[in-house]
This record gives sequence, C-alpha cells and structure tokens, in this order.
Amino acid sequence: MEDVTDSTGKIVLGADRYGKAENRVVRIYRDTPRHEIRDLNVSSCLRGDFAAAYTVGDQSSVLPTDSQKQTIYTYAKTHGDGSIEEYGLALARHFVDDIAPVQSARIEIEEYAWERVIAGGRPHEHTWTRRGPEVRIAAITVAGSGAERREWVIGGVRDLVILKSTGSEFAGFLTDEFTVLEPTRDRVMATSLVARWRFTTPPDDWDATHAGIRAALVERFALLHSKALQQTLFDMGRTVLEAYPCLAEIRLSAPNKHHFAYDLARFGVDSTDEVFHADDRPYGLIEATVRREDAPDAGIAWDTYTGAV
Amino acid sequence: MEDVTDSTGKIVLGADRYGKAENRVVRIYRDTPRHEIRDLNVSSCLRGDFAAAYTVGDQSSVLPTDSQKQTIYTYAKTHGDGSIEEYGLALARHFVDDIAPVQSARIEIEEYAWERVIAGGRPHEHTWTRRGPEVRIAAITVAGSGAERREWVIGGVRDLVILKSTGSEFAGFLTDEFTVLEPTRDRVMATSLVARWRFTTPPDDWDATHAGIRAALVERFALLHSKALQQTLFDMGRTVLEAYPCLAEIRLSAPNKHHFAYDLARFGVDSTDEVFHADDRPYGLIEATVRREDAPDAGIAWDTYTGAV
Amino acid sequence: MEDVTDSTGKIVLGADRYGKAENRVVRIYRDTPRHEIRDLNVSSCLRGDFAAAYTVGDQSSVLPTDSQKQTIYTYAKTHGDGSIEEYGLALARHFVDDIAPVQSARIEIEEYAWERVIAGGRPHEHTWTRRGPEVRIAAITVAGSGAERREWVIGGVRDLVILKSTGSEFAGFLTDEFTVLEPTRDRVMATSLVARWRFTTPPDDWDATHAGIRAALVERFALLHSKALQQTLFDMGRTVLEAYPCLAEIRLSAPNKHHFAYDLARFGVDSTDEVFHADDRPYGLIEATVRREDAPDAGIAWDTYTGAV
Amino acid sequence: MEDVTDSTGKIVLGADRYGKAENRVVRIYRDTPRHEIRDLNVSSCLRGDFAAAYTVGDQSSVLPTDSQKQTIYTYAKTHGDGSIEEYGLALARHFVDDIAPVQSARIEIEEYAWERVIAGGRPHEHTWTRRGPEVRIAAITVAGSGAERREWVIGGVRDLVILKSTGSEFAGFLTDEFTVLEPTRDRVMATSLVARWRFTTPPDDWDATHAGIRAALVERFALLHSKALQQTLFDMGRTVLEAYPCLAEIRLSAPNKHHFAYDLARFGVDSTDEVFHADDRPYGLIEATVRREDAPDAGIAWDTYTGAV
Repeated sequence: MEDVTDSTGKIVLGADRYGKAENRVVRIYRDTPRHEIRDLNVSSCLRGDFAAAYTVGDQSSVLPTDSQKQTIYTYAKTHGDGSIEEYGLALARHFVDDIAPVQSARIEIEEYAWERVIAGGRPHEHTWTRRGPEVRIAAITVAGSGAERREWVIGGVRDLVILKSTGSEFAGFLTDEFTVLEPTRDRVMATSLVARWRFTTPPDDWDATHAGIRAALVERFALLHSKALQQTLFDMGRTVLEAYPCLAEIRLSAPNKHHFAYDLARFGVDSTDEVFHADDRPYGLIEATVRREDAPDAGIAWDTYTGAV
Repeated sequence: MEDVTDSTGKIVLGADRYGKAENRVVRIYRDTPRHEIRDLNVSSCLRGDFAAAYTVGDQSSVLPTDSQKQTIYTYAKTHGDGSIEEYGLALARHFVDDIAPVQSARIEIEEYAWERVIAGGRPHEHTWTRRGPEVRIAAITVAGSGAERREWVIGGVRDLVILKSTGSEFAGFLTDEFTVLEPTRDRVMATSLVARWRFTTPPDDWDATHAGIRAALVERFALLHSKALQQTLFDMGRTVLEAYPCLAEIRLSAPNKHHFAYDLARFGVDSTDEVFHADDRPYGLIEATVRREDAPDAGIAWDTYTGAV
Repeated sequence: MEDVTDSTGKIVLGADRYGKAENRVVRIYRDTPRHEIRDLNVSSCLRGDFAAAYTVGDQSSVLPTDSQKQTIYTYAKTHGDGSIEEYGLALARHFVDDIAPVQSARIEIEEYAWERVIAGGRPHEHTWTRRGPEVRIAAITVAGSGAERREWVIGGVRDLVILKSTGSEFAGFLTDEFTVLEPTRDRVMATSLVARWRFTTPPDDWDATHAGIRAALVERFALLHSKALQQTLFDMGRTVLEAYPCLAEIRLSAPNKHHFAYDLARFGVDSTDEVFHADDRPYGLIEATVRREDAPDAGIAWDTYTGAV
Repeated sequence: MEDVTDSTGKIVLGADRYGKAENRVVRIYRDTPRHEIRDLNVSSCLRGDFAAAYTVGDQSSVLPTDSQKQTIYTYAKTHGDGSIEEYGLALARHFVDDIAPVQSARIEIEEYAWERVIAGGRPHEHTWTRRGPEVRIAAITVAGSGAERREWVIGGVRDLVILKSTGSEFAGFLTDEFTVLEPTRDRVMATSLVARWRFTTPPDDWDATHAGIRAALVERFALLHSKALQQTLFDMGRTVLEAYPCLAEIRLSAPNKHHFAYDLARFGVDSTDEVFHADDRPYGLIEATVRREDAPDAGIAWDTYTGAV
C-alpha cells in the first residue's frame, strides 16, 4: 500500500478459469474374476478465450461443466487403464486439442486406496476395505499446441500422518521477549504431510514411482535424528530428488502436530514422556521446496484449482 | 400427541449427566527401544446425586470436568498397560467407587490405529503412520456398589468402509406409486459400517477378540451373495455371535453408499458396470440388532454419550 | 458382565429399521413475485414386518429407500405448505397408513435458515443468503393405527452457539486428589446448544412456537447469573416449559466450550480477562432433561435415527 | 515434461516459510458494561534467513512458533482495538522490524461474527449468538525495511452462501459430443462465494469498507439478470471496484451449487420449478479476477499460507 493515491484505471477481466470439480469416479475392472478398483475424485479446469462469458454473458465459447463431467466419466472407461497421471494427461490433452477455445487444461485427481479383504484365508476377488487417511494426488496441466505445447505433471500425497516418539529435539533457537518455550532434547514429532513433486520426464511406471517416493519420504522421517521439522523436511526432499532423477522439485507442507507431555508429577506419578496430550490448534506450519538448480520452468504447474493438489 | 389438553404438572429435573469429552490421550510405551503407541480419544460421563447443581446452583457434589480430565491422563500411565476396555473399566470403577456422589460412570473411547514404518528394510522402532479411516471404539459403564454393582462393556468399530464390486443384487421388493427403481441382479454394494457388540463375559484377550470379530464381519460381507444389505448385516451379526459366546448382542448401522452405474452408452461406449458415480446424499440407512434370546439385561449399556460409541 | 458363563441362547433378529437419509430438499414458493424458500435435510425411517429381508433375503415387504426418496420430494410439493412439523407428520402418516408392512415411521428434518437480501434499499424478492450455524430440527414419529395410533413430535435447534463474557462463575465444587482447577467468580461461558422439546399438544402455529422457544432459551442464558452450566440449563428448560404448556419435556445438551484467559502478565501486559484462547478439545459436556411430572409417555419419540435430531 | 533428459542439477532449498497457524484468539472489550467481542483465527507466517535450519539443523535464526503464538495473543490486547486489518498490520510489522532474520511476514485472519442477544426486549450487554456461515477474512503481508518496505492488505469474505430462485439462465453454450445438458431460461443459481479484494490505499474505516463491499456483492448478485455465473461474478467485481477506488483488484471463487429441478411429473404432480434437489458433488467451479489496468504490483500478496485467505 505504498501508493498514496487511489487507482482509477480501467476495470478489466484478469485471470479466469472454470471447470467441474470433485467428480467421484469409481472404476471397476472386471476383465477377470479377480476385479480391481480405482476410486477417484477428479476435477477439470479450463482456461482460454472465455472473456465474453464474463463481460457480456455470451456462452458461445463455453463448454458446459456438465459436458466436462460426462467426459471425465467416459474417459474413465476409454482412457482409464493406467495410472491417474496417464488418465489425467489424456483428459487434459483432449480439452486442449478438441475444444477450440481452450488454451490450457488442468486435471486434479485424488485417489483413495482400497485394500483387498481376506476371506477364507486368501485375498478376496471382489471385496475391499478403504485405507486412509493418506490420499494419493496428481495435477496434470497441458497448455498450447504445436511447438508451443507444454505439459506438467505433479504427483503427491496428502494426509500422510506420521509420528516418531523419540529421535527429535528442538533447541538453540532464537529468543525474543515473547519466548517462554523451553528447549527440549527429546520430544514426539508428528505431522500430517502434504508432499507434491513435479516430474521432468515421465517415469516408466507411474505407480511404482509413487510408491517409491512415498516409501523414501517415510523412511527418512524415521531414520534422521531431527533437530527440527525444517531439517527433517529438507532431508526428506533431498533424498527423494537424489533417488528420482525424473523429478525437478518437491514441495512439502507439514503442520507440527504438537504432542504436549502431560504433567503427572502433580499427582505423584512419574510419566517420563509417556503420556501426551495431542493438541488440535494452534499448530506450527512448516513449508519448504527442495529443487534442482537446473530444474526446467514450472510455468503454471503449481497454480492449484480446488485444493485437491 | 394423543392428549387433548396441555400438561400442567410440576416441572422437575429429569435424567442428567455430565463429564469431560474428547480427551486426546497419546500413550507411548518406552520400556524397550522398540516403542509402542496408543492413540485415544477418551470421554468420561458421570451420573449421580447432582440435582442441586441444576436446581439451586450448588456445586458441592460436582467433581469438575477438569478433575476428570486429569484422572484420564493419569490413568493412561497407571492403568494403561492393557486394552482400551480394561483402561475404561479402571476409570469407570474409580469414579463410582471413589467419588461419593457418583452412581454410575460411562467411559467412551476411540482408538486410532498406527502402523509401524518400514525403514532400512525392517519395522522401525519408534515411527508409525496413521491408519484409517476405521476406528476402534469401546464404551464401558459401571453402576452401583456391593451387591448392586453392574458392569457393561461394549466394543466396536466405526467407519469401516467396505465395498464389493459384484455378488450383490436387489430385486423382488415391494412397490408403490412412487416406485421407479429397477430391480438389479448385479450391483456394487458399499457401506461405512458401525458395529458395536456387547460382552456377557470378559474375553481372555480383548485385543485379539476385537481383531477376530472385525475379521469375521469383513469376511462375511465378502463371502455372502447378497440379496440386500439387510440380509448381509444379519448374516454378519449371526456369524459373530456364533463364533464369540462371550457376546450377548451386536448392533449394526450401515449406510448404503450408493454407486450408480454411469450411462456411457449415450456416448457410444460400452461400460457394463465398470464406471460408477459414488453419490454423497441421500443414502439408504439400514440398522439392525442381532442378539441371543437369553442375553442378559442391557441396562444403560447403550445409552450413548458423545457419539463416540 | 456379572454373568459367569457365556451366553448360548438362540440367535435372533432384534430391533431393526431402515430408510433414506439426508434427502436435500429445497422448496421454492413461486405463487407471487415474492418467492419464499425452505431448505431441508429430510430422513425417513421405517419399522415393521421386515424380518424376512434380514433372515432369508426376501424383499417382498421392503419398500425401497428410493421410493421413500421419491415420496419425500413429492410431498414437498403436495404437503409442504406449512411447517416442517406438519410436513413430517404428513410423510410419517403416509408410510404407516399406506404401506402395509410399516408399523411405525420416523421423519427427521433439519431446516437451514435463509435471510432475504437487501438490494436497492429493500428486501429482494427472490434472493437470500444462508444464515447459520444454527439449524432448526424436528423429529416426527407415527405408530400404529386405529385405537393404537400414537404420534410424537419433537422440535428443536442444534448448533446454537451462544456466549456470555461475564455473569458466570464456578466455585464451591467437590475436590479430589486430581483437582487442580481454581474456582472462578468471573469467566466466559459459551456453548453450542442442542435443545429438543417434545410436544404434548399441537400448537396453533408451529413456526411461531419454535421462534418463541428459541428466544426464551437465549434470553434466559443471557439474564441468569450463572453458578454453573448445569444451573443455566435447568433454568432455561424450566422457563420454556412454564411458557409453553404444549410441551411435555425439553432435553438440553451443552458442550462447555472452554475459553481460557490468556496469561499476558508474563509479558508485562495487564489483560484482566480480555484475551482468551478458545480451546477445541477436550470440553465439558452437560446434558439434562427438564420435564413435567405428569408428562405423557414418550414411547419411541427419542429413538434417534440419523443424528439429525 | 518437454525435456527429454532427467535433471541432474545440484539440489538446493527453494522457497520456505513457517509460522503458527490457527491461533483461536477471543478478545472481550470490557471498558464499559456493554462489552464487545471479537472472535478470531490468526496465523503468522515468516520468511527470511532460515536456510541453516533446513540444511544443517541450526535453529539460531529461528524464532519458535510458540513465541509467535505468544505475540499474537499479546497483541490482541496491545494492538487489538481496531479492525483485523490494523491488528494484522501491527503483527506483521513487528515480526519484520523486530526479529532480525525475518524478511517478510504474513498474517492471515478469520473473523467469526457474533450477534447481540435480545433479552428483556433490548440488546443484552454481554451475551451473543454466533452468526455464520459467512466468515470475514484478511491477509496482511509486510516485507523489507526502509526504502524497500512494501505492505499489502487483502480483505475478503468466505462461505457467503447466496441463492436466487429465478432471474438466472444458461443457454447458447458451446457443445461437443459429450454435451447432453439442456439449455434453461429459468433456474436456481446458488454459490458459496469466496471474495478477496486487494487494497491500494488504506480506507478511513476498515470495518465500514468491509460491510460496504459485502453489501455491494450481495446486491449485484440479486439484481443482475444472470446469463451465467461468469457474467454475474464479473459484474459483482466491477461494481465493487467502481465504488471503492481504494481497491486494486478483486478475486472471486464461486462453486456452482447445483439445484436440480425434481421430476414430479412421473407421479402426476405439477411442480414447475418448485422442488429441487440440492446436490453435493460434483459442482461447477468458476474463478475470476476483476482488476484495474493500472493496479500496482501484487508482489507476494496472493501467496496464501493456510487456506484461510
């Protein structure tokens, strides 16, 4: 607000976009008696020559969000045999290539995990239970055509709740007149991680790559003796980038889910960091990007639509 | 409303109860380098001679809910080495036996599952990820003293989301002038089960019993060819009671999470029950109790306090 | 669990019921240019001769929940010109009277409030904004026919969040070895009230009665100097029963939403109960019924189905 | 993903930030017997020279999030007599000016509305009920010092749920092979608006400005005959900018909350757009910015931290 005068310039339409959010697509694969399931939440988002819809109410360039919905469900059958990243790429390319006014399309997908039920001592062919809270996420953006064509793929995970009961400290920090926190050499550290990684090149196997990155993140959280959540996040990110040359960068958002040691000494009970109160709010919130110095331009890859990714 | 005149009787205090709800207790067991974790949401609820607090604002018989909270956290250390049912029994007995005005106490507990992380190729000693959405629940009620002493234990599970992609039909139903539903011989059947079972006798191993009941429920859902969710629920309940003589009854609440086959024929695509829309609302809601004819009296066992159980 | 032996009795179906939950009905009244809106969440629940559906998978007595849904939407037009209590009565009577196997029907309704928008200096004829968080609720139960016919109507409100910044104390309470709470003569008292009242006779104007009861509850919360939430709740309930002879009883459930005075003295700031932390969990939870001694039998009036009421 | 080779560049820390999220501050003003209340959810977010915390676990430049929390609660007393924008500015300036490593600070605030209760026929002096679902939001960013100092203020509202029962159409849209939607000349239009506006110059009265912008948005939604949500949003934004020269731009995010006319003709009932099903998912999602061509640079003003704004 450094300007001392009001703005009086012409009023115009700035950035705009629209689409159909949160299509709850469930795909069952019935090719053999052993069925497979994929449970998705899919959002489409289009940008392009839509200004007339805003400024004069002219819909002639606007593909209804209902049509986008029909496409999403149809493509689940016709282009849904692979990973969510491949399905998203097919959808995004369709909107850019086949719908004239569309200049770029973004597809955001959440995938909910299901686990095959054990029945009669073996995995059942067509029954599963949901497994969470962790959700796999992806965001695919396709823009332009011909030589101008760009494609960005982000994979990730949200609500990966992880906790270590020791191997974490927090000390030697800056203090000010509002600092009453005591340093600690042993604490519970817990978070509900959101991690999103941007691909430079498509991996041979999207699903295996996702599983490998997820495993690496979890392993580093466990193995690194932590001096702070910041250090842990950077180490997790670096480890993933070292192991996956197909990635340009990884973004991590981590609430510090505070577990306060409960004071039982008042009641004559020695608890020694065995009883904690898991507090709801407020919480620390640490966010960091780990990236390669030579990472290609991210363009609009990180321009999130629904909060799904 | 069959009475034709208004009520004019004396106005009195009816049933009342109070307590501290949703204490988020996390217990870490550090006896060996391989830690264990138990993550709980604990509520206490007391009934007794508290009328004066309501009618004249006299607190002299009211144990503060803060004191109940301190007790809950303290007992996590002193009485928290076993199952949630045993921990709940210890808490409920304490309130009834040691706090004079208390005539009955109810302890409701939710237990959140954690799964040991794999790091360096083996289970890590002090790191876990949360596993959901399923939550184990228990409700323990203790009432009276001496010869009047009664104790009821309910165990259970909520948010057990389960789906079968075939082996379910719905046909031959009653019709009226509002019936437009078509019968079906093959459909997706899914629910988010809440199951609660009442114990007659304490099992040797509460945790193993919980795991066994949960496994039996899931297995029957998978194996039974379903003619309706009603039939499936009854079969699940009967199977559990047959296998667990320690149980008097089981209560099942099951939303029918509708998965509607998506009509792709409009777009020239043959999908044959492979693409579904998972609808949010409305949903069918089926509830049933399966019980033994000679089950002992349930008393106030099912008088739920917080919604936790 | 006073029995020393396991139960081995015959396994049978206990209580059962089913219906369609959470139909999101929006009714617009367009009789004049000044439209009206009613925004509802309606659930139907049937009990009756449905045992064969559970025990042998025979649906011949089962009216599909889809048919119930169609009825709910249709009745919004044909029987939806009055209050939610009247609409619910019409639906419940229909299910009991017209669907042979049905012995009792329960209709639970939530009504969301909308407020007419001001445009051009006056209330707009067809635009509203939602007003919450408070929700009006009702539960109507109809059972039997002929001389056996019974009808119960419950009205109420949930999520009525109310706070007073003074005029509340808590002192003189019972103490035990876990009591560390200090008595207080001045505190913030806040709750998110659920209040449900049972009618003995139908009022002339259901909507005006609802508004009057709601106003009385709020006024008493404000005016009574509180010695505890218990005392406040009883006083609120008694006041309502005194003013409304058409009511038999009122049930109140009130979380004590703790607002902790923040200690700023550590930082040299005198705050004198001006800055508080609104804590999430745990919370006290106080529940009480205020009733007339001569209230008619409640039967199954309080047998809640969805949590809506 | 146009690169044909993997990235192999040096791995470095990219953007990072941290803070304390969701401090639930309640401020009571007790200067006179007529109290006032302000109910806030406050998050702080710092950027600066924190790289060593990530890369080598050195906390010597890291002010604990706990210290930020203490500051937030203390400032509620010492700098909390005005609007949330002024309170946020004070906090952000403090972190930048007084904590050496901090280069920029962002304060995000939600304010929950309370309405004075009527008791004894007049507004009560110290009792309120909560009013929602609408929430006022603000995001204040302060960066740099001396000649480099920049300050950005964003105000706004979220969860402003608004509905019009007529005066809305959708026709003349683009069609493709997936288009089955029928055009309509009369429909219910509803959204749950998020609107955020960026100030160029500080208004004389932040609270009055907020109320005025909110009223203008609502009025335009009501008055404009809508050819699509896009047109309505642009008109709302333009109207606000025209009336408030202190604003540079406004961003609008609007889910199209679909209300589907229910087909009652099947049951012989003429409903003529009087009965609707309010669907949950999927929903259209329309987003647009309306701005002045000469608007000053937004810098990091829109770099959202918690989702609060």
